Amino acid sequence: MKLKVYVDRMSQPSRAILIFCKVNRIDFEEVQINIAKGQHLSPEFKKINPMRQVPAIADGKFTLFESHAVLVYLACAFPGVADHWYPADLFRRAKINSVLDWHHSNLRRGAATYVLNTVLAPVLGLASNPQAAAEAEKILSSSLSKIESIWLKGNGKFLLGGFQPSIADLSLVCEIMQLELLDENDRSRILGPHKKVLEWIENTKTATRPHFEEVHQILYRAKTRFQEQRSMGSNNTTGSSNRMTLPSKM
Amino acid sequence: MKLKVYVDRMSQPSRAILIFCKVNRIDFEEVQINIAKGQHLSPEFKKINPMRQVPAIADGKFTLFESHAVLVYLACAFPGVADHWYPADLFRRAKINSVLDWHHSNLRRGAATYVLNTVLAPVLGLASNPQAAAEAEKILSSSLSKIESIWLKGNGKFLLGGFQPSIADLSLVCEIMQLELLDENDRSRILGPHKKVLEWIENTKTATRPHFEEVHQILYRAKTRFQEQRSMGSNNTTGSSNRMTLPSKM
Repeated sequence: MKLKVYVDRMSQPSRAILIFCKVNRIDFEEVQINIAKGQHLSPEFKKINPMRQVPAIADGKFTLFESHAVLVYLACAFPGVADHWYPADLFRRAKINSVLDWHHSNLRRGAATYVLNTVLAPVLGLASNPQAAAEAEKILSSSLSKIESIWLKGNGKFLLGGFQPSIADLSLVCEIMQLELLDENDRSRILGPHKKVLEWIENTKTATRPHFEEVHQILYRAKTRFQEQRSMGSNNTTGSSNRMTLPSKM
Repeated sequence: MKLKVYVDRMSQPSRAILIFCKVNRIDFEEVQINIAKGQHLSPEFKKINPMRQVPAIADGKFTLFESHAVLVYLACAFPGVADHWYPADLFRRAKINSVLDWHHSNLRRGAATYVLNTVLAPVLGLASNPQAAAEAEKILSSSLSKIESIWLKGNGKFLLGGFQPSIADLSLVCEIMQLELLDENDRSRILGPHKKVLEWIENTKTATRPHFEEVHQILYRAKTRFQEQRSMGSNNTTGSSNRMTLPSKM
């Protein structure tokens, strides 16, 4: 039975898993779980992931969720996956696990909370929390500095001095990519000072092309839509509604 | 060269790693990094963990941080560790990874943020944030409910229906143990409704005795000290100082 990958392409860990499967030519079926339509709350999807979150997978009767656990499983279960994605070597694997674990409470927390409390809240009809956004920006900027000074030091193109990407590169770069949705001033202020991070993003795109850009198309379309709506909002002086609409594919 | 384990016993992931090493009779040296004294900020410790956090390890020249990555490494690197802690079986291992990954943004985030914004902030001379505490309690209570309904269902004594503990049991139970520091009313309100969680905590203590209780002695002493200071604080009507002192071992 073909591997099923349950995703919403608007979710950054969903995109990481899709890119991984495509780059590694894993034979899979993409099952779209549209969060905006509440499909993650259906009884059918609860059987796949009782936490009701994407991404998740079903490999025959075996189900799994949490994107890092999924990436590790896919790298180990599918023999065609090159070793550099999740090296068999105990020490290199341990270092990658360390990056992935660190990611949760640092880069992911900062990026996701910042995007939610700036551009996403109005789209979702929620109140933005400027204090939460300010705190998240601190975590995010600190995380980017640490990535640069600790894991991107040296001459390697990827984290931990690697010359080929690992699942940690893919997961972290996909997380950062959601900053595309921000107002350009905000995005430049946050990412601009981190030249090595910007190079690393490009290296990861290049190493996973054309799949990286293809899977991120939905994000680029959302970015354009958000920009247009911000522009309309700033020209709208009637104050009738500040709520923006979701892109049709969200 | 003997494994060095850098810990502050007041940190819950530090305690998890110490218990793991002791239960599995790993030959190691405990190096105390006293956070209250700023020892995690020293140049020497930066060489072990550039993130300047405990726990961390040095196994010869190999250094590692992030407690889950460390537990996985120890389980794989030391041949005396029984398989149930981190099974070699791909599917069982994947499920444990899923629990560990979920832990970061759910149970850990809820428990650590709640304890910080209730009992720890006054001890550390910080302002408590009641709104942050209220939000953290929601995450914590929701996490405990999910642990009970998803991972403790069935007849097993441990997570995922296990009859012996894994590193996920140890990590999550050690996280919950910090709730010992709370005012008893708060602790009962949060933990009381979760009978299965309470049984699982006892099962984990029993499976890892006497080391579990020995390593948690510092927490029990802090609990007593906090209770005494709260009691003194409530009898103190002069309002001279609400700041409590850290236990001598912190």
